[in-house]
Amino acid sequence: MTELLSDTARESLLPPLAENGWTHDEKADALCKTYEFEDFTEAFSWMTRAALWAEKWNHHPDWRNVYKTVEVTLTTHDVGGISSLDAKLARKLDSL
Amino acid sequence: MTELLSDTARESLLPPLAENGWTHDEKADALCKTYEFEDFTEAFSWMTRAALWAEKWNHHPDWRNVYKTVEVTLTTHDVGGISSLDAKLARKLDSL
Repeated sequence: MTELLSDTARESLLPPLAENGWTHDEKADALCKTYEFEDFTEAFSWMTRAALWAEKWNHHPDWRNVYKTVEVTLTTHDVGGISSLDAKLARKLDSL
Repeated sequence: MTELLSDTARESLLPPLAENGWTHDEKADALCKTYEFEDFTEAFSWMTRAALWAEKWNHHPDWRNVYKTVEVTLTTHDVGGISSLDAKLARKLDSL
């Protein structure tokens, strides 16, 4: 069952993500990061890999691609904020 | 050579696009459309086909995907507004 991250979980999960460039949109309670690639093919290739994980985990990013940049926003609408799934997907995106 | 659409070209190219749901953002001089699909896999499959054409024509959309929707904005930054490439890509996206 997906739940909103507890304060304790936030204290352990969010700082490592912040170190990797994820910011916390407090108003939306979402994780945000802008990835920059060499060009469009690199950006879209990464999106394709990310899409497979998103679909596999049934948890999808809100993302915008403009040529070689991809702006990603992760939140869990069902719980109204960041869940462990968002943290997990964020780590996966960083690893691709 | 890509050029800003002339008034005459706009009169012939933009109305058919408007009939297919493209709106004209006058401030940005851009073509905008939101596509809605059955689900994420349909949306991303369409984006993948679109990406191949965008790369082939070296003309890339500004697009945002949220689950089954894709918001597309087309403009030609080099000329500061809509060019024939935008109209061509818009028609291609509608055909995919």
